[in-house]
Amino acid sequence: MAFINENYFKLKAGYLFPEIGKRVRTFKAANPDKKIIPMGIGDVTRPLSPAIIKAFHDAVSEMGDAKTFRGYGPEQGYAFLREAIAENDYKSRGVDISADDIFISDGSKCDTGNIQEIFGSDNIVAICDPVYPVYADTTVMSGKTGECADNGYYPGIVYMPCTEANGFVPELPKERVDIIFLCYPNNPMGAVATKSELKKWVDYAIKNKAIILFDAAYEAFITDETIPHSIYEIEGAEKVAIEFRSFSKTAGFTGTRCAFTVIPSTVMAFDKKGNSHPVKPLWSRRHTTKFNGVSYPVQRAAEAVYSQQGKREVREIIAYYMENASIIKKKLSEVGFKVYGGVDAPYVWVRTKDGMKSWDFFDKLLAEAGVVGTPGSGFGPSGEGYFRFSAFADRADVIEAMDKIKALFR
Amino acid sequence: MAFINENYFKLKAGYLFPEIGKRVRTFKAANPDKKIIPMGIGDVTRPLSPAIIKAFHDAVSEMGDAKTFRGYGPEQGYAFLREAIAENDYKSRGVDISADDIFISDGSKCDTGNIQEIFGSDNIVAICDPVYPVYADTTVMSGKTGECADNGYYPGIVYMPCTEANGFVPELPKERVDIIFLCYPNNPMGAVATKSELKKWVDYAIKNKAIILFDAAYEAFITDETIPHSIYEIEGAEKVAIEFRSFSKTAGFTGTRCAFTVIPSTVMAFDKKGNSHPVKPLWSRRHTTKFNGVSYPVQRAAEAVYSQQGKREVREIIAYYMENASIIKKKLSEVGFKVYGGVDAPYVWVRTKDGMKSWDFFDKLLAEAGVVGTPGSGFGPSGEGYFRFSAFADRADVIEAMDKIKALFR
Repeated sequence: MAFINENYFKLKAGYLFPEIGKRVRTFKAANPDKKIIPMGIGDVTRPLSPAIIKAFHDAVSEMGDAKTFRGYGPEQGYAFLREAIAENDYKSRGVDISADDIFISDGSKCDTGNIQEIFGSDNIVAICDPVYPVYADTTVMSGKTGECADNGYYPGIVYMPCTEANGFVPELPKERVDIIFLCYPNNPMGAVATKSELKKWVDYAIKNKAIILFDAAYEAFITDETIPHSIYEIEGAEKVAIEFRSFSKTAGFTGTRCAFTVIPSTVMAFDKKGNSHPVKPLWSRRHTTKFNGVSYPVQRAAEAVYSQQGKREVREIIAYYMENASIIKKKLSEVGFKVYGGVDAPYVWVRTKDGMKSWDFFDKLLAEAGVVGTPGSGFGPSGEGYFRFSAFADRADVIEAMDKIKALFR
Repeated sequence: MAFINENYFKLKAGYLFPEIGKRVRTFKAANPDKKIIPMGIGDVTRPLSPAIIKAFHDAVSEMGDAKTFRGYGPEQGYAFLREAIAENDYKSRGVDISADDIFISDGSKCDTGNIQEIFGSDNIVAICDPVYPVYADTTVMSGKTGECADNGYYPGIVYMPCTEANGFVPELPKERVDIIFLCYPNNPMGAVATKSELKKWVDYAIKNKAIILFDAAYEAFITDETIPHSIYEIEGAEKVAIEFRSFSKTAGFTGTRCAFTVIPSTVMAFDKKGNSHPVKPLWSRRHTTKFNGVSYPVQRAAEAVYSQQGKREVREIIAYYMENASIIKKKLSEVGFKVYGGVDAPYVWVRTKDGMKSWDFFDKLLAEAGVVGTPGSGFGPSGEGYFRFSAFADRADVIEAMDKIKALFR
């Protein structure tokens, strides 16, 4: 008799974004003529830049010619891309990461979920609250939790509240934790962590032999020069941290699919007897056994992000989104909303008014302004009463959406 | 303290193909002038066909224009591709599979490994011997086995020998099994299963409430019209079977990456109390939480496989490889090798001579003929004394390789 993984039944409700999609579809069906402005899912809207498109086309042409055709590539990714990453994302910032430490993948969502497979089921996972839902969901799926409690927490996970009081960077946990998810610049709150804040975490991980899973998917949006782009800018992180990066938001690859994970050879985890083992060979084994590499033309497109022309074009696109963020912040502030983020991250985190619940605020904006945002409570209990606006939208839409919201709350 | 998944330490040696790669690199370094003919890894050599390349280019161009740009697609895959598959791969053969039952992915290797996540750890997995190594390796990684035994078997897995005596289609197991991996047309043996043979397995699964994981990655190579292309051609399979298909071998997508998994709504698995639950929602949950869909241009390229021009071009490429298979069979037979497969599958399965071990035969062919094949023992203990030749090669190389081997064994 084939048995299911009953841990899946512990998962509460649907995954956040499908639920948003469902409500939007229902609204559209009932109001076919109303304009909907999507500022919810955090999906990019600007096309791939010319340098990227040219490299993509060139590589597709290679695949049509027997002399240049490529079959299976290295599962870890082509050296041309790994070397470009090591050089431009790390060496250029004084960080010693080698191309061999980089694993190209088709998405950070996949990687942050799949990474749990190489760690034992006895680990205690710590996540921020609110947080990107995948960290908790995949922890539940892998059997490290109990049933969801009434407050929305899963017993077995250590939640670290990120609040206005702590500037959305959590306190060090008081109980034992073994694996710590951190995401800075942060989704959903748009907050950043300073070097000294991250140093505190790295020191904690070294002392407690814990591992930090550092999601840096939004590093390209940092404008403050003192904020670290990589956890490896912190001394000692190369012993305790795995970093996740993505081309999705940086270069508009949400529909093109390319990301990468960095695991220095010096990152160690432990067997039950307490002996240390390097983590990288385990991920390498998982990657070569359960993954077949990213599409060759997509890797060439990603490589073009690091060309002189590609860098310039990508910077312009990021500036466009950050100008959107600035408009969102300004207009919402004008009608008295408390707003956070949106300076070093493409998300603006807004307190709803009059203690309105996040999903009620969602329904109100959808029904009365045709604007789709993301309910803060969808990211965890501490997000209740907040709302996330994404700056990934067209300028005219952003202005129209904010003017409609202003009219509602004037 | 972060604990590793110690199941990884149970895995023996490296994964087969990296080991082959290593031996070839070592040989090349020592013999830089010798020509190497690769007939080992089962990687396609013909370029993507013109219809596919055109669709690929067109979709890349769409990604460069704000009016046609696409961000996140549906995790399950675009409807245009799922509908083309349902129509051309299933309805055209009288099989009732809906587009909703199809999940587009970036590879069957990923899917056949990841599918184990939705099943509980108490399941007993049955695999053929010899077999594609991923089924066993991922079963080990997921903690369902003990340490590898001296005979190469993992305790906890039920091995089903595929031998000359049973025509490379295994007997029904005598002990309890819950999840059964079957692959027909078969890798590595090139064997096929008739409708009545598969019916026996479907009936067994229904009776025992087991699930069949049916890998049909090579169905496009079937030439015998009586051989089923899909497990769903067998009555009742829609209740007990999950099917894996890939564009890798069918249309030369090994470097382009697109595949799919089929789970009819009627496939059931069980909780510990014996209550039945549909499997499809679990896979859907996994797919939406841990995967972000396949690159949009790649999905358009895959769709073109089903256009009239695409079908014609792909058939021609398959015929090219199957002519290679026929040459391999003929030439090896001429010097007295016993050969199997190569009629409805792109693999030729050869008995070595004089009881030579598979890896010794590998080393001999590499050193004395410059030909790289795949040692049968790499696919499991029952593959010892066999050797796999892949028909995915250039014609001139196939002829040269076979003539060199003939000269060695004349």
